[in-house]
Amino acid sequence: MQLRLGDLVDSLGGELHGDRQAAVDGLAPLETAGPGQLSFLSNPRYQPQLAASRAGCVIVGPAMREPALARGAAIVADDPYLYFARATRWWKARSAPVDAGPHIHPSAVVDPGAEVDPTARIGPLCVVERGARIGAGTVLKSRVTVSEGCSIGARCLLHPGVVIGADGFGFAPHQGAWEKIEQLGAVRIGDDVEIGANTCIDRGALADTVIEDGVKLDNLIQVGHNVRIGRHTAIAGNAGIAGSATIGAHCTIGGSAGILGHLTIADHVHVSSFSLVTRSISKPGHYTGIFPLDDNASWEKNAASLKQLHVLRERVRALEKNR
Amino acid sequence: MQLRLGDLVDSLGGELHGDRQAAVDGLAPLETAGPGQLSFLSNPRYQPQLAASRAGCVIVGPAMREPALARGAAIVADDPYLYFARATRWWKARSAPVDAGPHIHPSAVVDPGAEVDPTARIGPLCVVERGARIGAGTVLKSRVTVSEGCSIGARCLLHPGVVIGADGFGFAPHQGAWEKIEQLGAVRIGDDVEIGANTCIDRGALADTVIEDGVKLDNLIQVGHNVRIGRHTAIAGNAGIAGSATIGAHCTIGGSAGILGHLTIADHVHVSSFSLVTRSISKPGHYTGIFPLDDNASWEKNAASLKQLHVLRERVRALEKNR
Amino acid sequence: MQLRLGDLVDSLGGELHGDRQAAVDGLAPLETAGPGQLSFLSNPRYQPQLAASRAGCVIVGPAMREPALARGAAIVADDPYLYFARATRWWKARSAPVDAGPHIHPSAVVDPGAEVDPTARIGPLCVVERGARIGAGTVLKSRVTVSEGCSIGARCLLHPGVVIGADGFGFAPHQGAWEKIEQLGAVRIGDDVEIGANTCIDRGALADTVIEDGVKLDNLIQVGHNVRIGRHTAIAGNAGIAGSATIGAHCTIGGSAGILGHLTIADHVHVSSFSLVTRSISKPGHYTGIFPLDDNASWEKNAASLKQLHVLRERVRALEKNR
Repeated sequence: MQLRLGDLVDSLGGELHGDRQAAVDGLAPLETAGPGQLSFLSNPRYQPQLAASRAGCVIVGPAMREPALARGAAIVADDPYLYFARATRWWKARSAPVDAGPHIHPSAVVDPGAEVDPTARIGPLCVVERGARIGAGTVLKSRVTVSEGCSIGARCLLHPGVVIGADGFGFAPHQGAWEKIEQLGAVRIGDDVEIGANTCIDRGALADTVIEDGVKLDNLIQVGHNVRIGRHTAIAGNAGIAGSATIGAHCTIGGSAGILGHLTIADHVHVSSFSLVTRSISKPGHYTGIFPLDDNASWEKNAASLKQLHVLRERVRALEKNR
Repeated sequence: MQLRLGDLVDSLGGELHGDRQAAVDGLAPLETAGPGQLSFLSNPRYQPQLAASRAGCVIVGPAMREPALARGAAIVADDPYLYFARATRWWKARSAPVDAGPHIHPSAVVDPGAEVDPTARIGPLCVVERGARIGAGTVLKSRVTVSEGCSIGARCLLHPGVVIGADGFGFAPHQGAWEKIEQLGAVRIGDDVEIGANTCIDRGALADTVIEDGVKLDNLIQVGHNVRIGRHTAIAGNAGIAGSATIGAHCTIGGSAGILGHLTIADHVHVSSFSLVTRSISKPGHYTGIFPLDDNASWEKNAASLKQLHVLRERVRALEKNR
Repeated sequence: MQLRLGDLVDSLGGELHGDRQAAVDGLAPLETAGPGQLSFLSNPRYQPQLAASRAGCVIVGPAMREPALARGAAIVADDPYLYFARATRWWKARSAPVDAGPHIHPSAVVDPGAEVDPTARIGPLCVVERGARIGAGTVLKSRVTVSEGCSIGARCLLHPGVVIGADGFGFAPHQGAWEKIEQLGAVRIGDDVEIGANTCIDRGALADTVIEDGVKLDNLIQVGHNVRIGRHTAIAGNAGIAGSATIGAHCTIGGSAGILGHLTIADHVHVSSFSLVTRSISKPGHYTGIFPLDDNASWEKNAASLKQLHVLRERVRALEKNR
């Protein structure tokens, strides 16, 4: 399939330097793009790749106009990464075969008491239980479960294996065993939310677990009962959010990070990968707690010293006193 | 739906202070409960919320009797959290629509050579393979796989996406490649076990992987081959238990924690979230290994110092000698 | 079922000391094997178990020949662990009932535009989308999704719940929200790859995510878009590989370990469990970054000191100056 650069800028704007009739047959990274492909440069760090690229056309920001034009056709856009994002959507809308299948795949198990918007798509082998609601334009790819009474807003995308509304992990200890606390709440998911493969969002114990508009969750994330995740927060793969944590809006949480239960995280907080949040965070900022990687032998020595760190501190104090 | 307080205490015991005929239409947390709702206070830390709560009735312990009665109706119970747990079950049993569907959902794939107790429920799109056994009253929610020869006891609850009995991760190295070790064991799960969404328990290499009675596993947990988890141990989400680890009874393992292979953990051991157990633990207690969270700039300085910690210790030693 | 030791060594080689006609009815670990069972000893650490074992026959290396013969029948092989691996396959091939079902289970949803080799097996409730290719002898156990355009080589084994080709996690920020970057690449998986239960491998943004021949992935692993994993690398459960990371050949990555995005890891690198790789690694070796486990009280003191480590270092420097 081929699309013309002129049609692209007519749709998305941007300043085309080059032949409007030139056709591209795909998008590709700078280093592998050929003369028939469109590429982009957003991170100035990769500028050296620009001159060497064989791409037919390159999307760049205003600062890269000169070097880009020096090598050939270019589209100059204020935010080249955003432009690239839109170009991928423009491309997909035109190149992907129209999905002409039924809106609810015949292999899906949708309870008659569920409410599925006629414009939503329920993929193969999904389960939508009684009382669940699926909003307009929302897509459940294959093998997604939306449990009883849970609601998904409009224009959401749930990837394969997602489980919405399994029971939260709630038990009362009694004579050495655990007695189940029935999880009577549900999950409420806003609009424009994307949820990665095999991610799980548990139903609330009494009140609901809430995912606000525009949240993006990667794969294999665990979201406990009664969590609230604020608007436009993005969370990377393997992260775990314990029960009743409240995460603000516009946060980013790195991969395999964790947030303990019953904490509150302010808006605009950024947590590094592999870091565990053990207390509430009231100030926007970037927070980290990662054991630095080292060759194993050095790590062993430092880890052994770490177990004596408190004692070392006392020894320094003693030295200071006796100075 | 409405239920009467008098009926609740007739079923569960407890000392009702208030009108036996008063009806409640749900359970709710203290801060959001309205006059038609039942709430509870178990953690004394939340006592300030008690006076302010608009709940129609509150479950409290004996120590909270006075402040509870000062605000209105109350049920006094020895263990208010346990009472609350039982109230959720009492509520669900009376309010949830009776599940009148078939015991094996027609979309489930159950091998004729599997043995499913007639009182068990196999949900939509589950797979139960040849030789698997599912005990009395056990429920497999949607999209659960129980592989060949694995057995699940009575009254268990397996949430969507659970995989019981995939092959353990076993390979012998040979000339730079890996040769598969067929996993000839199975998984044996006791009674009253709950397993969270998308959690995986691998089959044993030769002997079986064993989950004893009353174990509670949260979502997205990996349990390797030949692991044994003792009675009434509870493990939180994203945790990983490597092959041939033996975990005692009555342990709690925090979220995203890990246990290396071939270790033995005593009964009544509590491992914090995000902590890795690298050696056997023979003494009950609470164990932790978490890098403390900090603002990123402070973390960077401390992490850099940490890579020199062993050297710092030597420097302190030198200072002490020269004192 | 019973198999004769003579037939085993005729198939797999090795030096049998004992009766060729002796039959075994299974394989078992040294400590539980009975007179009718075959066992093995590869790790010399377990030698004390050898003398005590009641196994009918034991596979050992040349160094263990004497103690093994002292107790009874034995097979001496150069690499007893490899021999054991092959014995498990020999056993399974002869003892497991022949799988006579259809090659594509009737409950699987396979797009007419997918290409499935006639010798591949697609298990119950799998989804194979348009343009996907499944190679010769490859097995998809139950509930596996292979998304549009993704290809799986020959002799691969994908365990239940695996998701191949969900969208990579790619968004461009715009006015406080996230705009989706369509993921236009696919996933290409080589030959002889095994992928554990509920593991996810995302499709590339522009180019493909690539898993080379002989890679072994455990359960619940997240592999981000545009990752490349080199030949015969093995990765343990719960690990997370962020987007565009390149991992060399013959590496091992421990459980719950992580690799940040856009890094390059050389061949023959071994990363410990729970360790995060935050920079490229160009030298083969063993790398670790784990906070050492301690009893909680000691951990608290050391963790508090750790947050002052940089200051402590300055204090030591001051002491050294004033010496």
